[in-house]
Amino acid sequence: MTSTADDYPSTDLHDPIGSADVTERPITDDEVFLAHVGGKLSVELRGPIDTQRDLSIAYTPGVAQVSRAIDADADLVNKYTWTDRLVAVVSDGSAVLGLGDIGPRASLPVMEGKSALFRTFAGLNSIPIVLDTKDPDEIVETLIRLRPSFGAVNLEDISAPRCFEIERRVIEALDCPVMHDDQHGTAIVVLAALKGAVTVLDRPITDLKVVISGAGAAGVACANILLAAGISDIVVLDSKGIVSADRTDLNHVKADLAARTNPRALTGGPADALAGADVFLGVSAGTVDETLIASMSDQSIVFALSNPDPEIHPDLAAKHAAIVATGRSDFPNQINNVLAFPGVFAGALDAGARRITEGMKIAAAEAIYSVVAPDLAADRIVPSPLDKRVAPAVAAAVADTARAEGIC
Amino acid sequence: MTSTADDYPSTDLHDPIGSADVTERPITDDEVFLAHVGGKLSVELRGPIDTQRDLSIAYTPGVAQVSRAIDADADLVNKYTWTDRLVAVVSDGSAVLGLGDIGPRASLPVMEGKSALFRTFAGLNSIPIVLDTKDPDEIVETLIRLRPSFGAVNLEDISAPRCFEIERRVIEALDCPVMHDDQHGTAIVVLAALKGAVTVLDRPITDLKVVISGAGAAGVACANILLAAGISDIVVLDSKGIVSADRTDLNHVKADLAARTNPRALTGGPADALAGADVFLGVSAGTVDETLIASMSDQSIVFALSNPDPEIHPDLAAKHAAIVATGRSDFPNQINNVLAFPGVFAGALDAGARRITEGMKIAAAEAIYSVVAPDLAADRIVPSPLDKRVAPAVAAAVADTARAEGIC
Repeated sequence: MTSTADDYPSTDLHDPIGSADVTERPITDDEVFLAHVGGKLSVELRGPIDTQRDLSIAYTPGVAQVSRAIDADADLVNKYTWTDRLVAVVSDGSAVLGLGDIGPRASLPVMEGKSALFRTFAGLNSIPIVLDTKDPDEIVETLIRLRPSFGAVNLEDISAPRCFEIERRVIEALDCPVMHDDQHGTAIVVLAALKGAVTVLDRPITDLKVVISGAGAAGVACANILLAAGISDIVVLDSKGIVSADRTDLNHVKADLAARTNPRALTGGPADALAGADVFLGVSAGTVDETLIASMSDQSIVFALSNPDPEIHPDLAAKHAAIVATGRSDFPNQINNVLAFPGVFAGALDAGARRITEGMKIAAAEAIYSVVAPDLAADRIVPSPLDKRVAPAVAAAVADTARAEGIC
Repeated sequence: MTSTADDYPSTDLHDPIGSADVTERPITDDEVFLAHVGGKLSVELRGPIDTQRDLSIAYTPGVAQVSRAIDADADLVNKYTWTDRLVAVVSDGSAVLGLGDIGPRASLPVMEGKSALFRTFAGLNSIPIVLDTKDPDEIVETLIRLRPSFGAVNLEDISAPRCFEIERRVIEALDCPVMHDDQHGTAIVVLAALKGAVTVLDRPITDLKVVISGAGAAGVACANILLAAGISDIVVLDSKGIVSADRTDLNHVKADLAARTNPRALTGGPADALAGADVFLGVSAGTVDETLIASMSDQSIVFALSNPDPEIHPDLAAKHAAIVATGRSDFPNQINNVLAFPGVFAGALDAGARRITEGMKIAAAEAIYSVVAPDLAADRIVPSPLDKRVAPAVAAAVADTARAEGIC
């Protein structure tokens, strides 16, 4: 507790392919660590407690009236406490960014960052909850016990395939919005970006041949939302090759995926999948060779979303593809979950939704697209992650859909 | 969610014996409810996220460096996250104020108030965690799983005798400061006030004959801290009478208390206990008759702490006692836990203490006393709950004691 930011050895933050912001001076490690000293969040009062009167209202004896009222009518907890606008960002630290299973403590800076983005973009309260267990039963059980403390749960950085079971069970157990952002946040923004891309290219989205590289949390969710959006020709790759019905090494999540994708019954590896494909969607930690991108159809679309190292350098991809996107801030078309999750949760909470449906996710994607639609270009298929118009648009679309679906 | 504060029926907040603040206009229900709309807390950013650079530092890719550093050296979590200054206020809602077992949701306004006081008086972050279980095993287990999320745990409004077991087990399981405030916060402030009272009366504290009315969370903790402070003649009353070794109806907590108190082996009820006693300490929801207060020694001390209705009206008590204190803000000598808990946790966290010891609690009481010592009077035996000098004084004393005891 007596060390300073300077104690941590200074190394270059930058990866080989570019600086974090080409228009500014490089971000140094010292700058990053200094910005994290003491954490990134604080809990503040919405009104001061300076006088005896303030104390008597906010605490005893006044608060007893409010507790009595909630005891008599449980719904009043939404009105007279912060939970109605409070998202818990919950992780076990098992799949943190590209760092893997670094555990709950090391995951905390990421979860604090997520909570900070909820405040910045959607005006929501959010607290990080990191759990010292990776057992799905214990995670679900813990969240059931914690339920009265929050209004919604953003599951974060939980490894596949555990994340699918945990999310399903938490959704079933809790009567509030629950979403594993690594799955659905990514999927929502990918769908929005793909709508932007096909509009620029003037071609129907449903005709696309899509290859998804990665069958983890993001890959599975992207496949699901693209299927829901009407795209029928989707081929998913995992580290062993094409996820196909003839594979005998698939877990139940991938077996289910094999049954719903790969309509041309392709087998083999990345080269077999990508030959003649229209879209490469990279959501793995892998790489893809330039020759395979060159083998895709004319006017192809490459989303190389692995972070910090895209599956292919965007400049190389651009030699062959009509539209290129990455997860990075230093290239055009940054596909970042922050375009989705603040508005999705704000809209669900605004509407008093009991869960987040597929319809609400697709409405979120359409709302993201609608913000950039007037300014669409090959290098602007999604809004900037900093565009403050996005979250309110997403929230309104999600809330409207929730009300229309009658799940409030 | 469309109702307003005005929807709630307006009733008079005031109890029969006085207004909440005799110097001001009365506090109305409308005012109390309006102050609670949306809750009393918000989570804010310590630095803005306005630019791409801010985003790259607080979130990806910058945050990955910080997570990697904590993964390599777990102690850095104290430096680079908010947990080092974060107190979880944890309750199951089983013994909320004088309202009883109203459950976790209805307890939330109280817990938010507590978190607000941590911020106001000690500058600490604090979040309410209310649990939808009353099972001690499940509460302990849940807090073990949540451990990486917080720096300290303030247990709150958990019913006796469960609170004793739960606190003991949580302290044993977690390597961080844990305190059930209903027990020890009350005990610390009572000891401070008693030091003030005996100083005003110029008599040694160790000679006092003390009667404690109430053998719940506060009563047991008060008995313990007064014993630790050198007072040997303590008699505890529960609803059945004097807690004495000959009783066959005592749970193990009260049996233990009987073995350590009541040195004159009294039996019977309040009249038997109070005849000739020097101190009446009321920490129950009961009442005490004026004639019994009249039966106490000359220069007696009455702390009637039941809230909102003291065991005896302070004006009646003052006819017979030299010094009278209550838990109420509208009479002199308000004995309020807020004098203790913010500074106790701040000091423990400042020192990096692994637990809160009896020595740290007694140091806290002495620090509270030290703030009021220069201005002591019969109607000023404790500082005002709003006195902002108290928490820093308590924190310094607690931290010094923690370091001296070598538990950091």
